[in-house]
Amino acid sequence: MTTRHKLRIIPLGGLGEIGKNMMAIEYADDIIVIDAGMMFPEDDMLGVDLLIPDLTYLLEHKDKVRGIVITHGHEDHIGALPYILPQIDVPIYATKLTQGLISVKLKEQRSLIKAKLKQIQPGVRFQVGNFKVEAFPVCHSIPDAVGLIIYTPVGIIVNSGDFKIDYTPVDGRPTDLSKLAQLGNEGVLLLMADSTYSELPGYTPSEKVVEDKLDHIIGSAPGRVIIATFSSLVSRIQMVINSAARHKRRVFIVGRSMRDTVKMAMEQGYLTAPPNVLCNVEDLKKYSHKETILVTTGSQGEPTSALVRIANRDHSEIRILHGDTVVISATPIPGNEALINRTIDNLFRQGANVIYGERSQVHVHGHGSQEELKMLITLVKPKFFAPIHGEYRHLVIHANLARGLGMPENHVFVLENGNILELDAEKGKINGRLPYGNVYVDGLVMGSMANVILRDRKLLSRDGIVVVIVAIDKKEGKLVGRPDIVSRGFVDFEHDGSIIEQGRELVASTLGGGHHTDYTSIQSRVKETLSKFFYEQTKRRPMIITTAIEV
Amino acid sequence: MTTRHKLRIIPLGGLGEIGKNMMAIEYADDIIVIDAGMMFPEDDMLGVDLLIPDLTYLLEHKDKVRGIVITHGHEDHIGALPYILPQIDVPIYATKLTQGLISVKLKEQRSLIKAKLKQIQPGVRFQVGNFKVEAFPVCHSIPDAVGLIIYTPVGIIVNSGDFKIDYTPVDGRPTDLSKLAQLGNEGVLLLMADSTYSELPGYTPSEKVVEDKLDHIIGSAPGRVIIATFSSLVSRIQMVINSAARHKRRVFIVGRSMRDTVKMAMEQGYLTAPPNVLCNVEDLKKYSHKETILVTTGSQGEPTSALVRIANRDHSEIRILHGDTVVISATPIPGNEALINRTIDNLFRQGANVIYGERSQVHVHGHGSQEELKMLITLVKPKFFAPIHGEYRHLVIHANLARGLGMPENHVFVLENGNILELDAEKGKINGRLPYGNVYVDGLVMGSMANVILRDRKLLSRDGIVVVIVAIDKKEGKLVGRPDIVSRGFVDFEHDGSIIEQGRELVASTLGGGHHTDYTSIQSRVKETLSKFFYEQTKRRPMIITTAIEV
Repeated sequence: MTTRHKLRIIPLGGLGEIGKNMMAIEYADDIIVIDAGMMFPEDDMLGVDLLIPDLTYLLEHKDKVRGIVITHGHEDHIGALPYILPQIDVPIYATKLTQGLISVKLKEQRSLIKAKLKQIQPGVRFQVGNFKVEAFPVCHSIPDAVGLIIYTPVGIIVNSGDFKIDYTPVDGRPTDLSKLAQLGNEGVLLLMADSTYSELPGYTPSEKVVEDKLDHIIGSAPGRVIIATFSSLVSRIQMVINSAARHKRRVFIVGRSMRDTVKMAMEQGYLTAPPNVLCNVEDLKKYSHKETILVTTGSQGEPTSALVRIANRDHSEIRILHGDTVVISATPIPGNEALINRTIDNLFRQGANVIYGERSQVHVHGHGSQEELKMLITLVKPKFFAPIHGEYRHLVIHANLARGLGMPENHVFVLENGNILELDAEKGKINGRLPYGNVYVDGLVMGSMANVILRDRKLLSRDGIVVVIVAIDKKEGKLVGRPDIVSRGFVDFEHDGSIIEQGRELVASTLGGGHHTDYTSIQSRVKETLSKFFYEQTKRRPMIITTAIEV
Repeated sequence: MTTRHKLRIIPLGGLGEIGKNMMAIEYADDIIVIDAGMMFPEDDMLGVDLLIPDLTYLLEHKDKVRGIVITHGHEDHIGALPYILPQIDVPIYATKLTQGLISVKLKEQRSLIKAKLKQIQPGVRFQVGNFKVEAFPVCHSIPDAVGLIIYTPVGIIVNSGDFKIDYTPVDGRPTDLSKLAQLGNEGVLLLMADSTYSELPGYTPSEKVVEDKLDHIIGSAPGRVIIATFSSLVSRIQMVINSAARHKRRVFIVGRSMRDTVKMAMEQGYLTAPPNVLCNVEDLKKYSHKETILVTTGSQGEPTSALVRIANRDHSEIRILHGDTVVISATPIPGNEALINRTIDNLFRQGANVIYGERSQVHVHGHGSQEELKMLITLVKPKFFAPIHGEYRHLVIHANLARGLGMPENHVFVLENGNILELDAEKGKINGRLPYGNVYVDGLVMGSMANVILRDRKLLSRDGIVVVIVAIDKKEGKLVGRPDIVSRGFVDFEHDGSIIEQGRELVASTLGGGHHTDYTSIQSRVKETLSKFFYEQTKRRPMIITTAIEV
């Protein structure tokens, strides 16, 4: 087959991770977008609420964008939609549960756009521009997750989405290995696969391991069992319900977001419960401790979550009692470790027995380990390979796995966000990189936030701010009255108020007697004098701003 | 033996961790202090440099404090000395290397106190007030670490210090198990032991494992080897020197703090090198890549460290080349994960092969795992047990290990910092808790920092600050001129300057025409109006401060 155009693959979103939150696939006049996720800000992005992928490239080629295909309903794959749709209003293709989660998301954000949501079924091809797309089921830590097969004029692309291989998933929908094997025999041009856990040797354990462990804990706990997990981990909640029914316990869902998700998942049929197993929290007191299980959010130590309030004796209805067993059925998202550990410590302090951590096997993660990654490559037998979804080191390790399976060096591409991978049927190359930046969302203001704002916030957070106000006589250019000083986050007025008073005197004597016409010079003289004085007195360097008023 | 007084054990320092940084042991008119370490601030302690233990109790009983005994030379055991000695000037007892590190520390801080440093030898008893003390060697991730045997009128206390059991330590000084067994047979009243790794089953691997692994890497690396580790990990540096000599490579120490420690350790005899193995970085170019090893700091991703500058192509002399092997011979200190991962990613980007992580066995930690903890308890056979050095959950797990070995429930004490454990020969109980707070060190200002400062810094870091300056006519109480607004960290003046201008207009129209005598009312009206306006416009809530000047 000869093709006039090159196929272009562009990872567009991810903070550290590559191609995680958004990718574009382009051929001739058509662009298809995969996922539209948000990212959480890093520690030094002070006051930033969230980040979304840089849309510049898509906006520049807006007339080519034919649709957004979503692989699953996690925030890092759907969370940017409310911000993107007002700018790029194209159809969104997603499976049923994912669609439900997108609707909830858009409603939360009061998005005014009437999103064009199209429901897709695994195994049923649909057309997006000049691409044919088919979803295939994969296992991940949320139901209804899919990988994508994209039929392009140059060849077939397989994108794994977030995936692991689980022969005994709770929802009975294992990753479709025969479909992948069949494709492999037909010939796949490019495989793009999840590298999140490429550092881990071996296989990721099945959810069955967790099911057995949870069932054992629930069956043998001397009193109440409190299980904290992600609200999107519907299969984990299903396990708890099943186990509760077996051990004649009632399940109480604690916390609004957990209740909302459970309600939606029940309505859509992704969660089922025998009669009388799910109960209202108001009825908790009607049952003995041995008869109850509480399911709650807070597995990441989120300060406002039910579990954290319980751990801090701050919850209006639930107090930890001796004999309670608390299970943290989740792994820490990087950066949350300290919050989670503090919560576990406080639960122990209240007298609970807390079961947590990888060794306790009460959680398995949702991504494939090295042997699964090798299996995927081996089944799909792609001509070209591009590891995605992971930080740079994960991609390098995944690429090395592919090379270890015999793939030629120049058929394996380690990309960065913004890189343009160009492919024809015979060869591929990385052809440049878009000027790339994530977009901050801070309040309503969107756009790559001016670095000066973040820099100022960082300075403010270190040693606070001192604002000096001086009044200058319009005619004479002389200082009028005593300079005023306002400060925040610098010193404690009760104990160190005299430092501020001395600062005022110092400004008065620095500017007193002078004839001032140049405000810049006033500013720099005040700053110099006060910086020195404050540093000597406190070893702190607050931001110093002087404003002069003409009177 | 009858004793009139009770023995009191008080853990005094630790952020999360209990008894880690300072403990007090008190009998009648004598207090002995163990360790005097600093703590690093948590994420929400903005602008705080470091924390030291709360000294209130010791200052209130200053005339009773007889001495400070230091177990080893890590920052979290010696780092508070420069702040404590000016207030409590008592003798400091430490082994040779620890003493050297304390001297370096006091010199760095330009401490004016002439510290009374007393060198101690393991196995040689010394008197501190009415206590006899004897140090015994333990293995930890720094040489010359000791545990303490404290002979009190009530009985013998054993404090493990930070320890692990390593039969093949690099310095040939294993933990003195026979001494502990002998004590156990004589009868120990109380064991206090390191709980840092009580979550880990099994044994902590020996440094020998790391030695073999590093030797293999150094022997087979195709080019340069760059090894990042802690400068205090003298034994690790010794391994590298030994291996370099075997493989005919030269060792170059990169970075000032690493060079200082190596120099001190060589002078004191804790580090030895065959002739011509250690070379100056200036001579690096004289050798082929296969002949060189670089040892550097930066294993925690510290932004100004040599390794991070190398990873960012920001180092004046060293660039990563294809064929370089970088070894991260350290585990992340909790909270540093993101910085380290970013460094590893950047090293891969520069083309290095990076060897890192627990599975690669290029680092083992310095604390005992569960089997070692059980061994210690079994050998020492204490009457009472108090786990220390760890967060609350670690103490609970360690206490459960002791109970599992048959210790009676009421002989095992899980303490909090500030708890007073009172013991006589027959029984013990936790008798209350001191009002406890860590002391912040922020610049020169020490003392429990006013919470309002930290709260303000947090607010400032989120959405910045807006300062409104209005001039009010002294006689008429009328607004004079246009109100002025200064802001930082709130909006970008280039793009959003008009919001500030509109804010000025709004303040003018709010206050214009009025007769103002009450400044509090001016402040609250301005704040109310502007908060609402700014939130509508930006969804941000900057701190708003109004200052009124009489003219």
